[in-house]
Order: sequence, then C-alpha cells, then structure tokens
Amino acid sequence: MKGLTDAQVAIVGLGLMGGSLAGALRGRCQAVVGVARRPGTIETALARGLIDRGTTDLAASVRQTDVVILATPVRVILRLLTKIGPLLPKECLLMDVGSTKARIVTEMARLPGHVQPLGGHPMCGREVSGIAAADPTLYQGCTFVLTPPPRTSEAALALGRDLVEAIGAHPLVLDPEHHDRLVATISHLPYLLACGLVGTAEEVASADPTVWKVVASGFRKASRLATSDVTMMLDILLTNREAVLEALGTCEAQLSNLARLVEAGDEEGLRAVLTAIRERRVRT
Amino acid sequence: MKGLTDAQVAIVGLGLMGGSLAGALRGRCQAVVGVARRPGTIETALARGLIDRGTTDLAASVRQTDVVILATPVRVILRLLTKIGPLLPKECLLMDVGSTKARIVTEMARLPGHVQPLGGHPMCGREVSGIAAADPTLYQGCTFVLTPPPRTSEAALALGRDLVEAIGAHPLVLDPEHHDRLVATISHLPYLLACGLVGTAEEVASADPTVWKVVASGFRKASRLATSDVTMMLDILLTNREAVLEALGTCEAQLSNLARLVEAGDEEGLRAVLTAIRERRVRT
Repeated sequence: MKGLTDAQVAIVGLGLMGGSLAGALRGRCQAVVGVARRPGTIETALARGLIDRGTTDLAASVRQTDVVILATPVRVILRLLTKIGPLLPKECLLMDVGSTKARIVTEMARLPGHVQPLGGHPMCGREVSGIAAADPTLYQGCTFVLTPPPRTSEAALALGRDLVEAIGAHPLVLDPEHHDRLVATISHLPYLLACGLVGTAEEVASADPTVWKVVASGFRKASRLATSDVTMMLDILLTNREAVLEALGTCEAQLSNLARLVEAGDEEGLRAVLTAIRERRVRT
Repeated sequence: MKGLTDAQVAIVGLGLMGGSLAGALRGRCQAVVGVARRPGTIETALARGLIDRGTTDLAASVRQTDVVILATPVRVILRLLTKIGPLLPKECLLMDVGSTKARIVTEMARLPGHVQPLGGHPMCGREVSGIAAADPTLYQGCTFVLTPPPRTSEAALALGRDLVEAIGAHPLVLDPEHHDRLVATISHLPYLLACGLVGTAEEVASADPTVWKVVASGFRKASRLATSDVTMMLDILLTNREAVLEALGTCEAQLSNLARLVEAGDEEGLRAVLTAIRERRVRT
C-alpha cells in the first residue's frame, strides 16, 4: 500500500465536505481527483484550486486510484459502495465521510475482498452546503472518527490516520454503533431541537405574527441548525432512527424535569440544575 | 418634561445591559449617572468612558434626575420600584430593561402618582455579563419593546421612544402580557432547550464520557445559551412561569411529532416538515 504522498485520491461528491477535503488534501498527496455529477461543480472546484483534476465519470475515476473517499449524503454512500466496490483496484482504500456509520460499515463488510474499507466521520460542518462554501481549513482541529470494519488491514487504517492528520484533524477510532449513539446526542438532537424551536415559533406566529418582530440573537443562534440541508439530515435521521429516538427521549425527560421545577416555583432546585448545566457547558 | 438632550439619566445596575445602555446614551443627554453597588464597577465604567458620573448611593442619585432606568435582574427591579418610587422627583420617567414585563408593569401601576413609569425590554443580549462585557453598540438595530402602564402620559412615552431611538433601537409598544407570551417562545424557550441539550449530553456522558470527544460546532452553537447568567434566567423563568410552560408544551408537541415521523420512517412526511421549517428559518 502506497504512502499518502504517493497516493492518488479520488473524492466523490464535491459539496461542502468533499470540496473542503479536496482543498485540504491537495499538495499532500500525488493528486486529488474530484468526481461530481455536474460539470459546473468540477469547473468551480478547478477554478478555486481545490482539485488537481475533475471528472463526471465515476467508474473511470475509481478504476485506477489508490484512495477513494465518498463525500455524499449517507444513503447515496450506501448506493455507491455497492456500485463501485467491484471496480476498485486491489488494496484500494475506500473511505467515506458520512454522518452515520453503522449502516455504512455493514455495507462495507460486503465489499469484494480486495478492497480496504474504512468508515469515517469528521466532527465538523456548517449549515451552508455546496462547492461554493468549501473551505480547506474546515477540518483543522476537529475530531475525525474512524470506524474500520474488522477485515480492514493495519496498513489501511494507518493510511487513513495519515490522511486525517494531513488535513489537520485528530483521528479517533470508534465502533460504528458507538459512534452513532454519540452523534445522535451531539449532532442529530441539536438539529431536531432547532427544528422544534422554529416549529414552535411558527405555530405561535400562526395566531400572532408579532412573534417574528421580537426575534433576537439568542433565537437566531439556537435555531441556526434548522437551516441545514434537508436531504443530508433526512439520510442521517433515517439511518440512525433508534439512537436518535433514544437521545430525543432523554432530552424530553430533561425538559420535563425543568418544566416541573418551573411549575413548582422550586427556586433552589432550579438554581442547582441550571448552575450545574451552565458549569458543564462552560467547561466544554 | 424635558427633552432627552436636556435630561439627566440615572442608570441603576451597570452590568452588560446597563453598562451598554450608559455608553450608548452618553453624549445624547445632559449627563449619564451610573449607579452600582460596588465602587469597582463605577471605576471601570468611568475608565471605559461609559458614564459621566457614578455613585453607590441609590437614594441620592434618583432624588434629582429626569430619567431613571433600572437595569438589574427582574426581581431586583421589582424590589427597587417599591424602594425608589417615593424618592423620585415629580414627572420623573422611570424605565426598566427587565426581560419579563407583566409583574413589573403591575408593580409600576402602584407607584406614587407623580412618577411616569414605562416598562421596556430591548430584544438583544449576549451570554456574557458584567461591565467588562458592556458595548455601546449592543442596542443598534434591535427591537426595543415598550410596555407603558395605562396611567403613563403621552409625553413620557414620547421621551421613552426618543431614548430608544437615540441608542439606535426600534421601539415597539406592546401590552405586557403579550410581550411575555412572545418572549417565552423567542427567548426563554431557546434557553431551556440549550439547557436540555447540555443536560442530555451530561446524562449520556455519565455512562460514556467519550461523548465530549465528539462535540462539534453544531452542539456548541445550539447550547451556547446555557451559559447565560443563572440568576438573571431564574428571575425570568419564575416571573413568567405560565407562558414559559405553555411554550415548552408547544415545543414538546413539535418534537413528539418529529419523533413520530422518524419512528415511522415516514420519509415524505419528514421531508415536508423539515423543509417548511428550514424555509421559515431562512426567511427569519
């Protein structure tokens, strides 16, 4: 298996995550090849200096490469794995940056034996999407979870780690189910809470539109995640249903407890809970 | 009643809101007098050029002034109203910037007849607190709700409007109960959701501390309000219990609906709801 500096890396999907990854890797490997459905996306990626070469021909691009990274919504990744698996050259490292890992790693385990699969999920992102928003510094300092299937070789995992470190991120190896439970709380729950907040304001506004006149920065910050790309979020929610529902259930119990304290006017109880939460968040 | 440029304004409480208000008003009225409990706060306010003069003597400062603005947590405002009401000179405009208005305006209605009371609530703020965080540009462009009791004169309300416009904010006159219902959704609910999110992560972390390793920017943004000053938030929640509980109930129903769609795997239903929420938030 080649080292990163000698490797050709094909990145499939040039949105925020793929475009940023391409820009971060360029110059740190032999070549970055961008793969997108639309020629306009490749033109933009080339013009912005994010890729060395680009193509809309997925099959051709993956037949002769050392590393392939799938950077599309989760369910597109699941379809692509089946499609490109047989096309990949021997010992090709096949990574992804999908936001849920259990379904993807299960699908990776079914790939032909000559492929080296490695699940990945960088813990960064923005509410904006598309190649126009790509930023090669996006990954700097973030935790990048790696979820290798049992069959993956030490050499392939080491190359994956090198790649993560090359873009300025910190690798963290986790079991895929463990990853999915954690991100349900850290990432999917905040999105749903932001949606619940906007939905509540909209429900209030349907009887009283003045509500939109008193929107302040607190509401804006707390609801910003509700502007995330819906297709990406649907794929996440629908491939991590059980963990998402569990996180939501835990949060509903937390909110019910806060409501109970407010209703009872239990000042000391409320102060204790809110102070502990504040201190925990300040430390984070 | 004097116009704003000829008026002496006493600001009681030099935290984030009072200190910023002082700095924004300075030079737009005859003099800004800062009133704080601790001499160190006044020294800082003077050194930062936020006030013309300062004192720790509340009674003396309000006896000979044209405008008094109370900028403390809500329940301190309630106590101060009773205390300073009898001391104020004839036709003195007595405002506040407390975050809930019904209890305050009820208390204002009991003030001696020679005082002109006017409830106020600027729809801005930050999670930081104290004079060190004061920023004279804080109010620029924000909606500043005014909740006059029925007894307040047109002239007093006009002076209040002038003051709001002088600091770059937009006055919006509302009934106090109406204001409190709206901010329960726009301001108090986001705080509780942020607390619920941090509480959920802490509960998950108690069995699995790895959760803190995958914290990303989404979680940080969505939970930032949980770092708000606890005493200020307690006063808000406990003086707006009914509206806060109603907003929380509406939000819980919104979240239950999202959970139901996720549990059912109802992709089209979920897409429709999340898309409508996203579009609503993008327009806001």
